[in-house]
Amino acid sequence: MLGRLPGHQRDAALAEMADALERRSAEILRDNALDVEAAKRARTAPALIDRLLLDEDRVRDMAVGIRAVAALPDPVGEVDGGRTLPNGLQIVRRRVPLGVVAVIYEGRPNVTADATALCLKSGNAVVLRGSRLATRSNLIIAEVLTGALLEAGVPRWSVALLGADREEMRRLVQMEGALDLVIPRGGEELKSFLKEHARVPVIYAASGNNHVYVDAGADPEMAVKVVVNAKVQRPGVCNAAETLLVHRDAAPGILPAVVERLTASGVELRVDRAGLDILGEQAEGLAEVTDHDYATEFLDLIMAVRVVDSLPQALEHIARYGSGHSEAIVTSSLASSREFQAGVDAAVVYVNASTRFTDGGEFGMGAEIGISTQKLHARGPIGLSELTTYTYHVTGDGHLR
Amino acid sequence: MLGRLPGHQRDAALAEMADALERRSAEILRDNALDVEAAKRARTAPALIDRLLLDEDRVRDMAVGIRAVAALPDPVGEVDGGRTLPNGLQIVRRRVPLGVVAVIYEGRPNVTADATALCLKSGNAVVLRGSRLATRSNLIIAEVLTGALLEAGVPRWSVALLGADREEMRRLVQMEGALDLVIPRGGEELKSFLKEHARVPVIYAASGNNHVYVDAGADPEMAVKVVVNAKVQRPGVCNAAETLLVHRDAAPGILPAVVERLTASGVELRVDRAGLDILGEQAEGLAEVTDHDYATEFLDLIMAVRVVDSLPQALEHIARYGSGHSEAIVTSSLASSREFQAGVDAAVVYVNASTRFTDGGEFGMGAEIGISTQKLHARGPIGLSELTTYTYHVTGDGHLR
Repeated sequence: MLGRLPGHQRDAALAEMADALERRSAEILRDNALDVEAAKRARTAPALIDRLLLDEDRVRDMAVGIRAVAALPDPVGEVDGGRTLPNGLQIVRRRVPLGVVAVIYEGRPNVTADATALCLKSGNAVVLRGSRLATRSNLIIAEVLTGALLEAGVPRWSVALLGADREEMRRLVQMEGALDLVIPRGGEELKSFLKEHARVPVIYAASGNNHVYVDAGADPEMAVKVVVNAKVQRPGVCNAAETLLVHRDAAPGILPAVVERLTASGVELRVDRAGLDILGEQAEGLAEVTDHDYATEFLDLIMAVRVVDSLPQALEHIARYGSGHSEAIVTSSLASSREFQAGVDAAVVYVNASTRFTDGGEFGMGAEIGISTQKLHARGPIGLSELTTYTYHVTGDGHLR
Repeated sequence: MLGRLPGHQRDAALAEMADALERRSAEILRDNALDVEAAKRARTAPALIDRLLLDEDRVRDMAVGIRAVAALPDPVGEVDGGRTLPNGLQIVRRRVPLGVVAVIYEGRPNVTADATALCLKSGNAVVLRGSRLATRSNLIIAEVLTGALLEAGVPRWSVALLGADREEMRRLVQMEGALDLVIPRGGEELKSFLKEHARVPVIYAASGNNHVYVDAGADPEMAVKVVVNAKVQRPGVCNAAETLLVHRDAAPGILPAVVERLTASGVELRVDRAGLDILGEQAEGLAEVTDHDYATEFLDLIMAVRVVDSLPQALEHIARYGSGHSEAIVTSSLASSREFQAGVDAAVVYVNASTRFTDGGEFGMGAEIGISTQKLHARGPIGLSELTTYTYHVTGDGHLR
């Protein structure tokens, strides 16, 4: 078990890995260029090629990321509970590695390094299964990492890179007993595949159909800033907001300014009838929103807008369309903030803050391997602690029941 | 959401449920008698009929159990983490109910009451799916409980009892989005069914192929007592021990006494060659152990015995045959105790204590709905806290990223 290696040895291996990536940057870039060339020849979409492409900065970022993981506190062996029973039996609940974690991902070769670092730090062996697009890049990165592990005295089997074969992936996710967890970092197609085939536990990383609700009496300036930040700061990620809900009483004071700012930032708005009425002339050229829009995670500079009659109506809307990721209220009412946090069932519920903070780094948890919207085991950022389980160590002096 | 009912209201509903069970005991016994009669006519095994049978004491025990659950601290709303970030954003991690939990169980009608109490206390709605054998018993108990809930102002949909139809169960465990967790309390057949059909998360309650390892230099008297207690005190349950491993140096001083005590308690022993040699004449009539025995959870007065050369060999044996439930070492060496706890991957690892302590009640967690041998979400006793998830409540004053 990798988790039995002392923390300083796992950290030394991580340091070695980071150094080796920088030292062998030229080899990595050379093989990555072959992947990129092949992808271009195959007329792969430019966005995918951008994800695939490495340069010196991106390789250095991988190394920096690994060093940051090494610097985090060791999650293995942490005592997170326990008690001494009236009979004197001492119970200590100690965090231990899960065992073997598989990470299935798409075209970003840097995930090969990130996932390896997080799993190694948390004492888990890792099985990597990347995209066919990045075959050569992943191979060379895995080779560099494995070489570094061996240098540091960590067993070779701690990292395994699979080919991009679908049948092999099916076998992988059915390896009960040999594999403890699968973390997919991919789209809906991969999810359905796993729902159908996986017999090993899976933590589904999130889609985020997130809302910002602006309450009656909210500070208009704060409301506009939070909405714009949640939508515009990085629209292609799962913690961006997709729908704005505005209380009827707040709408006249807030909608015109929000629409102006969002439009100026290049956001396409889809607004409900009540909102269009409030906007008057400003509504010209704006589309009317549909139920389909409410249900869509745009991941783009598009935002749905709905005027609601009350906070409970906003809660209903979120319960119906939200994906349980990140939901925000802007309010100056303490009662509203309590009602919203109690009434929304999501990984993260914000009061007067942008949904964009849902992130392991922002949360002070260090690097993360994804955001979970499921309720079991890990909810929200999946950091080091979420890559462990616990065991009860119970000590007595001959205790009998 | 049931979890939004304040704790005192959920507790009042539990009190009402307990009272109603006692008040309507005669009705429950009448319908249970019909189930028992039908089971006898169908020539059901006596052990199953004993599980099915209720009497006044057993009904009273259900009520007592519900009151004990009501008296536990409320797991809903417990803050189990959080921090204030350098930017002033306040993060509070708060425990919230999972939502809807399904419990699938076999012939014991008392599970209908126990499972309902644990789910209600933890703010979850519960879907109950019992055995066909107990149809009438479960119906009347569910009716009594539901009546009590309504009295206490808790919505009727908080408890649903399904029929014992297999197709209905298949539909149930595929209700993604509507159902948050399935807890099976049944045998291997039910497990395979769920592995094949479930699309909703499942926590598999345990089988326990548990070991007691007696180290070189262990106190012989303590060793004998722990082994006998772990095997004999209640052999039919998952935390009983199935195999005794004895260090070669300890075997001559311990095996004869253990065999004598176990045989006197009616235990059938299956011993390896080395053990039989040590036992000499005492070995007469004892069977030689097989690999199949090592792999079997007897749940009966049968025990496998193996002499091992070393603690690492004991660890290897446990890694190969153990089910990750409860494992114990008897030792007087601090180094051995540390090596054993670090080297065994199980829900509970004991030093100088009987495996029989693996139990929510014994652990001071209150009632439990089962023991988990899986690593995700819940490991060991599944108590109230394990029936919740968490949400991050984040509060700022207009924080932007």
